[in-house]
Amino acid sequence: LTGSGLFGPIFARGQAAEQVSDEAWLQAMLDAESALAQACADHELIPKAAAKAISAKCKARLYDIDAIGIAAAQTISPVVPLVAQLRDKVGKTHGEHVHFGTTSQDIVDTAAMLVAKRALAPVADDLLALRAALGELADEHRMTPMIGRTLMQQALPTTFGLKAASWFSAVSDAAYEIVIADESGLLAAQLGGPVGTLSAFGDKGLAVAETYAEKLGLADPYIAWHTARNRSADIASALGIVSGVLSKIALDVILMAQNEIGEVREAGGPRRGASSAMAHKRNPVGAVAITAIGKRVPGLVATVFGAMAQEHERAAGAWQAEWETISELIRLVGAQVVWARELIDGLEVDSGRMAMNLEGAVLAIGGDPKEIDVGSAPAIVDRLLAESLSETPQH
Amino acid sequence: LTGSGLFGPIFARGQAAEQVSDEAWLQAMLDAESALAQACADHELIPKAAAKAISAKCKARLYDIDAIGIAAAQTISPVVPLVAQLRDKVGKTHGEHVHFGTTSQDIVDTAAMLVAKRALAPVADDLLALRAALGELADEHRMTPMIGRTLMQQALPTTFGLKAASWFSAVSDAAYEIVIADESGLLAAQLGGPVGTLSAFGDKGLAVAETYAEKLGLADPYIAWHTARNRSADIASALGIVSGVLSKIALDVILMAQNEIGEVREAGGPRRGASSAMAHKRNPVGAVAITAIGKRVPGLVATVFGAMAQEHERAAGAWQAEWETISELIRLVGAQVVWARELIDGLEVDSGRMAMNLEGAVLAIGGDPKEIDVGSAPAIVDRLLAESLSETPQH
Amino acid sequence: LTGSGLFGPIFARGQAAEQVSDEAWLQAMLDAESALAQACADHELIPKAAAKAISAKCKARLYDIDAIGIAAAQTISPVVPLVAQLRDKVGKTHGEHVHFGTTSQDIVDTAAMLVAKRALAPVADDLLALRAALGELADEHRMTPMIGRTLMQQALPTTFGLKAASWFSAVSDAAYEIVIADESGLLAAQLGGPVGTLSAFGDKGLAVAETYAEKLGLADPYIAWHTARNRSADIASALGIVSGVLSKIALDVILMAQNEIGEVREAGGPRRGASSAMAHKRNPVGAVAITAIGKRVPGLVATVFGAMAQEHERAAGAWQAEWETISELIRLVGAQVVWARELIDGLEVDSGRMAMNLEGAVLAIGGDPKEIDVGSAPAIVDRLLAESLSETPQH
Amino acid sequence: LTGSGLFGPIFARGQAAEQVSDEAWLQAMLDAESALAQACADHELIPKAAAKAISAKCKARLYDIDAIGIAAAQTISPVVPLVAQLRDKVGKTHGEHVHFGTTSQDIVDTAAMLVAKRALAPVADDLLALRAALGELADEHRMTPMIGRTLMQQALPTTFGLKAASWFSAVSDAAYEIVIADESGLLAAQLGGPVGTLSAFGDKGLAVAETYAEKLGLADPYIAWHTARNRSADIASALGIVSGVLSKIALDVILMAQNEIGEVREAGGPRRGASSAMAHKRNPVGAVAITAIGKRVPGLVATVFGAMAQEHERAAGAWQAEWETISELIRLVGAQVVWARELIDGLEVDSGRMAMNLEGAVLAIGGDPKEIDVGSAPAIVDRLLAESLSETPQH
Repeated sequence: LTGSGLFGPIFARGQAAEQVSDEAWLQAMLDAESALAQACADHELIPKAAAKAISAKCKARLYDIDAIGIAAAQTISPVVPLVAQLRDKVGKTHGEHVHFGTTSQDIVDTAAMLVAKRALAPVADDLLALRAALGELADEHRMTPMIGRTLMQQALPTTFGLKAASWFSAVSDAAYEIVIADESGLLAAQLGGPVGTLSAFGDKGLAVAETYAEKLGLADPYIAWHTARNRSADIASALGIVSGVLSKIALDVILMAQNEIGEVREAGGPRRGASSAMAHKRNPVGAVAITAIGKRVPGLVATVFGAMAQEHERAAGAWQAEWETISELIRLVGAQVVWARELIDGLEVDSGRMAMNLEGAVLAIGGDPKEIDVGSAPAIVDRLLAESLSETPQH
Repeated sequence: LTGSGLFGPIFARGQAAEQVSDEAWLQAMLDAESALAQACADHELIPKAAAKAISAKCKARLYDIDAIGIAAAQTISPVVPLVAQLRDKVGKTHGEHVHFGTTSQDIVDTAAMLVAKRALAPVADDLLALRAALGELADEHRMTPMIGRTLMQQALPTTFGLKAASWFSAVSDAAYEIVIADESGLLAAQLGGPVGTLSAFGDKGLAVAETYAEKLGLADPYIAWHTARNRSADIASALGIVSGVLSKIALDVILMAQNEIGEVREAGGPRRGASSAMAHKRNPVGAVAITAIGKRVPGLVATVFGAMAQEHERAAGAWQAEWETISELIRLVGAQVVWARELIDGLEVDSGRMAMNLEGAVLAIGGDPKEIDVGSAPAIVDRLLAESLSETPQH
Repeated sequence: LTGSGLFGPIFARGQAAEQVSDEAWLQAMLDAESALAQACADHELIPKAAAKAISAKCKARLYDIDAIGIAAAQTISPVVPLVAQLRDKVGKTHGEHVHFGTTSQDIVDTAAMLVAKRALAPVADDLLALRAALGELADEHRMTPMIGRTLMQQALPTTFGLKAASWFSAVSDAAYEIVIADESGLLAAQLGGPVGTLSAFGDKGLAVAETYAEKLGLADPYIAWHTARNRSADIASALGIVSGVLSKIALDVILMAQNEIGEVREAGGPRRGASSAMAHKRNPVGAVAITAIGKRVPGLVATVFGAMAQEHERAAGAWQAEWETISELIRLVGAQVVWARELIDGLEVDSGRMAMNLEGAVLAIGGDPKEIDVGSAPAIVDRLLAESLSETPQH
Repeated sequence: LTGSGLFGPIFARGQAAEQVSDEAWLQAMLDAESALAQACADHELIPKAAAKAISAKCKARLYDIDAIGIAAAQTISPVVPLVAQLRDKVGKTHGEHVHFGTTSQDIVDTAAMLVAKRALAPVADDLLALRAALGELADEHRMTPMIGRTLMQQALPTTFGLKAASWFSAVSDAAYEIVIADESGLLAAQLGGPVGTLSAFGDKGLAVAETYAEKLGLADPYIAWHTARNRSADIASALGIVSGVLSKIALDVILMAQNEIGEVREAGGPRRGASSAMAHKRNPVGAVAITAIGKRVPGLVATVFGAMAQEHERAAGAWQAEWETISELIRLVGAQVVWARELIDGLEVDSGRMAMNLEGAVLAIGGDPKEIDVGSAPAIVDRLLAESLSETPQH
C-alpha cells in the first residue's frame, strides 16, 4: 500500500500508485477489449458466445507482462501483442472476433481513462479527508493569535485558524475537479477505429460507441479524441493544481517548524524524522516529501500540455509521451495527498510559541502586546466553514 | 491592434495584448483603488467626498509609468509609488483616505483579475468565432473523402469534415473555461489587508470586501487568496489548453500543406507567406505563428504551477513571478487565437488533391478506389454539430 | 537489456536503465560507505580491520531493498536504514565505525554521481557509435541530391549527405559533455559531513575527502556541494541537449518517411512497425519512440533547474526532487540513444524517390531538372568529416 | 539602464536588457547584412562600391521598427521587410547586391548570436564582480561561527564564510560558460543560404562563410545550424544554471533575514524595502527579485530545449519560438545578476545574532556553547579561495 523499492514508499505512497501499475494498465486494456466484445455482441456484430469467450480471458493475471512489453517495443504499442495473446487464449472459434473494428489507440486511451478513474478515486477520498481535517484545524484555531508574515518578514497579527482556513479553501477548490472527475464527463471512452470513422461497425458505429462507454462507466465523447488531447491536459492540470496547493501547505509547515520559530511540529514516532548523523533532530519529513513531489509536478504538467500538438489521426510520439507521464503524475500527486493527510492529522500546534513570537513582533515595532487585533479573522473562518458544510467541495 | 515592435505583430497580435500592457495594468490598479474608496465610503469608513476625490484621480493617463516603475523596484511593488502619487494628486484633505486598510497585493491581485477579465473578453470572442468557422468547415466537408493518417503513415479513408469536427470539438471544450471565466467565479477580487484579516475595517471587513468586489464586477472570494494561487493556475491552465488545441490544428495544416500532399493551403495575398530568398514559395505563415506560440506556452504554464508554493501571508518571489508570466500567457494565446481565426477563415481546401492522395493510398494497398468507406464520419459530424447549436460551448 | 514491464522495452531500452535501478543505487551507496571506511582507515581514523569488515558487507545483494525503502520513508532518506542494516551486518566490534563522520546526503549524492558515471558510460558508447554511423551516412550520400525544405515547403536542392552531416555535427556537439563526463570533473564525490565542515575528521578532513574521491574514481570538489547543484543541472542539461538533437533526427525521418514523400524508411522485420488494425502499414517506430522521449525530457530538465534553489546546508524537498528525476532522465535519454542507433543503422534511403521529388519540385517552379545545383554541399560534408576524424567529439 | 515601464526596473534591470531590445536586434540584423556584403566584396561576388553603399545604410536608426514588425507578420520574418527597406535605401545601382546568396534565417540567427554576444558581455562582468564580492565575503567570515541548518532544522555549527564560499564556488562554476562564451566557439555565425548549401556563392561558399564570421567576431560553425539548435540550448542552459545558483543565494538570504533569525539584512536606503501598509518593515527586496526571476527561468529553458526538434532545413514554428524566449532569458538573468551584485554588496551580516542563534542551538541539544567545533570550515575556504585567484573562473 505504500509503494515498493528504494524510493517507492516516499513517491508512490498510498493507493493511487498501484492503480497506475503495469498490472493495472494491462487489466484496463483487457477491460476495454472485454467491453468492446460485449458491445459488439449487443449490437449483433459478433456472436454472444464470442463475447463471452473473450471476456473470460480478459484477466491480467493470465498474461506475461514482460513478454507483452518486449513485443510492444516492435510497434510502440502494447495492444498489438496483447491482442495476439488474447486471440490465442480465446482460441480458433472466436479468436477472429477479438479487437473487432477497433485500433490500438482506442484500447490504450480507454485504458488510460479507466486507470485514471480507478486511481483518482482514492485520491479524491484522501482529498476529502484532508479537507475535513483542515476544516477542523481552522475551526479549532479560529481565535489562536499568531504573527502574520509577508515577504518572509513579520507583519501584523492574524490567527492560525485563518491560515488553516486558507489552506482549507485552496484544497477545496483544487479537490473539486478530482472529486467530480468520474461524473463530469472528463473521463471518456475512446472508440473510433483506425482513423475515427467507426467504419467497421457499419451503421451501428455510434450505437456501439455508446454501449461501449456505458459498459465501462465512462462518458461517451461523441467523437474520437485520438489527437484532441484536452482530457489528458485537464487531468494533468487538475493534479498540478492539487500539487501546488499541497506544496504551499508544506512550505508553511516547514517555515513554522524552524527551531527559531517553533510554531508547529510534525508528528514524531519511532525514528520518524530522524537524521543519520544528528540524533537530536526531528525533521519535517512529511512536508519535505510533499515539497519534493511539488517540485516535480509542474514539469510533468508541461510535458502533457506540450504533447497536445498531435498529428492527423494518431500522433507519432506526442501521444506515446503521455503514457508514463500521466501515470507518474497520478502516482506522485496521489502520494502527495497521502503525505498531506498524515501531515495535518499529526500536526502539533504550539499556540504558546505562536503567542510568544507574536509578542516579540509587536514589541519590536513599539506596539502593545495586550492589544492584539486579529480583525475579521474568526469571522472569515466561520463564514467559510459554514458555507462549506456539504461533503462535496464546490467551486 | 496588432502589437508593435519587431515581433509584436506576430506574438502580440489582436486585442488581448493591449489589455495586458503597462497602461492596462496601471488602470486596473487605479480601478481597484477607486473601488476600494467607494466601498469604504459606502460603509462610512471614509468620507464620500474623499472617495469622489480619489476616484477622480484614478485615470492612468495622469501618471508617469516609467517613474512608477523605477520607484517600484525599490519595494518590488508598483503599488507603493502609485499610492504615493495618488495621494499627492488627491491632495492633503483627502489624501490620507487613499489605499484605506489595504495592502499592495490586494491592489495588484485585483488588478491582475481585472486585466484578465478585460483581456480574456476578446479572446473569448475570437474563440467563439473560430468555433463557428470550424463548425461550418466541418459541415461543408462532412462528405469530402481523404486519407486518414496514423503515426504519419497513410491509414484508412476518412473525411475532411471529420477532421474539422475534431478540431471543432477540441476548440469547443478548450474555449469553455475562457468563455465562462467572467461568470464562473474564477475572476475574484482580492481584499484582505496586509495579512488577510481585514483588520482596518473593524467589523465591516466582510461587507467592505463584498461591496468592493461587486463594484469591480469580480467575484467575492470569501477569504483572501494572497498565497492560495488556484486562480492563477486555473487561468494559466485554461490558456494552455487553448494553446495546445490550436497547435494541433496548425500542425495538421502544416502537414497537409506540404507540396507533396497539397490538400490545404493558407490564404495568400500581397507578400503573405513570401520568402526572402525563394520567390516561388507560399509559406503557411499563420500555422507557423500558431506553432511558435504553442511551443512557448507550456513552459509558462509550468512557471505558474511551480509558483503556487507561496510563503505565509505573502510570498517572497513566487507571487512576483506571476505578473509578467500571466500577461505573457494572455498576450501569446490571445495572438494565437487571432492567427487561428485568420488561418481557418482563409483556408483553401483542395478536395481534388485529397481525392487523388486517397486514391493513391488505396491503390498502394491493393484496394479499389471506387469503394471508399468513410464509415460513420458524416453521421458523427452531423450529431456533433446538432448538439452544439448553442452559442456557448458546453463541456 | 531492454527494460522490463509494459513500457520498459520502449522507454528503458538499453543498458543505462539498469544502471539507474534500485539495485544500482543501493550498490552505489554501499560503494560510498565502503570508500569512506577505506579512506578513514588510510588516515587512521578507524581501524583497518573495521574498514575491511565494512567493505565486505557493502554488497547490494545482501540487502532487502523493499525494507530499506519502507524505513526510508520515515526519514526521507534511504541512508538511515541502510546504515542501520550495514552496522548490523558488520557486527558489534566494528559497527560503530560505519558511516564515520558523514551524513546521509554525502552518501546519496556520491551514489548519484557513481550511478551517473556508470550509466553514462554506455550512453557515451552509443553516442559515439551513432556519430560514426551518421558520419558514414553523410559520406555515402554527400552527392545524393534531394529537395531541401524550409517552413515545411519545398525550397531548393541540397544533398541527403548534407542533411546527415548536420545530424552528425549536432550529435558530435551534444555527445561531447557525455563522453568527457568522467574526466571533466563534472562527476564529483560528496563528503562534507552534516553541514559541510568535515568536523568529525579533525584536521584530516581535506585529506579524507581527497582519498575518498580518489577511491571512487570521482573528482574532488574542494567544497561540499550539498546545496550548490550545478552538477545536477549540468547532467540534466547535457542529457537534454542530446535528447533535442535526437528528436530533430527522428522528426526528419518521420517526415521523409511519409508515404507521399517516401525518401527514407525504417528497417522492417517480423512485426516491426506493424499496426493492430492495418496490416499494410510499416510505421516509423524507432523515430516515434525517440520523439516520445524527446517530448518528455524538457520538463524533467526544467525540474532539475527549478530545484537548484536549495536551503542552507541541506534542502527540504528540492534535493529529494532530483533523485528519481535524474534517474528518469538517464533512463529515457539512454533509451533514446539506443533507438537512434537502431534507426540509423537500419535506415533505408531511397535515392530514386529523392530524385523524383526533387524533379517535381524543380519543375513546379519552372526550373530545369537537369541543372540541379547543390552548391557547396559535398564540400561542406567533406571538410566537416575530415576535421572530425578523431574518436572523441570536439566542441 | 534599469529598464522602463511598470515592471522593467525589476525584471529588465541592468545593461543586458537593452542589448536584447528591438533596436539591438535590428542593428544586429543590419550588422549581419553589412558583414555579408563586405565578405561578398572581399571574394569579388559583389562590387566593393556596393558593399560600401550597403554598409552605409546598416544603421538601425534609419529604420521604422514598427513598420518592419507589421510587415514581418506577413512572412513571420523580420528580414523580408528589412531587406526590402535596405534595398530601397541603397538605391537602384547597388540594391540588387543586398542580401546576396543568403536567407532570412542566416540573418536572424547571426543577429541572435550578436545579440547574445553583446548582451552576455555585461552579464559576464557582473558575474565576475559578484564572484569577487563573494570571495571577499567568504574570506572575511571564514571564522564567523553560525549554526548550520539541514532540512530547515538547526543541525551543527559551521561558519558564515563556508556558506559564502559555497555561494562563491557555485557562482564561479556557473559563470564560466558565460564568461568564455565569446571565445569558446559557442557564438557562431550562420550562413548557409536557403537550404544550407551556400549555392549562390559558387565555389567560394566556404570562404565567404569564414570571412563573414570573422568580420562579425563570431565563430565559423563549418556547417549551417539552421535546424541543429545546440547553440540555443547551450545559451539557455548556461543562463539557467546561473539563475539557479543565484536563486539559492537569495533563498538563504531570505531565510537568514527572517526576524526570528536575523542573521543578515539587505541594505536599506530611502524607501528601499518599504511596505505600502506597514511602515516598520524592511523587506529583502533584492532577494525577492532574484527569487521571482529564478522561478521564471526553468520554464523558459524548457521551451528552448523543447524547440530543438526542428523540421528539415528550416523549422515551421520551433525556431520562431526561440526569438523572444532567448531574449527573455537574457533579460531576466541579466537583471538577476545585477540584483545579486546589489544584494551582496549591501549585505549586512549580524555576527552577534549568528553567535546567539548558535548558542541557542547548542544549548538546546545539551552541548557546551564554549566548545564550538567548525571543523575544517576555515581551511576549506582558504584552499578554495587560494585556488581561485585568477580572474577567470575555471571549471
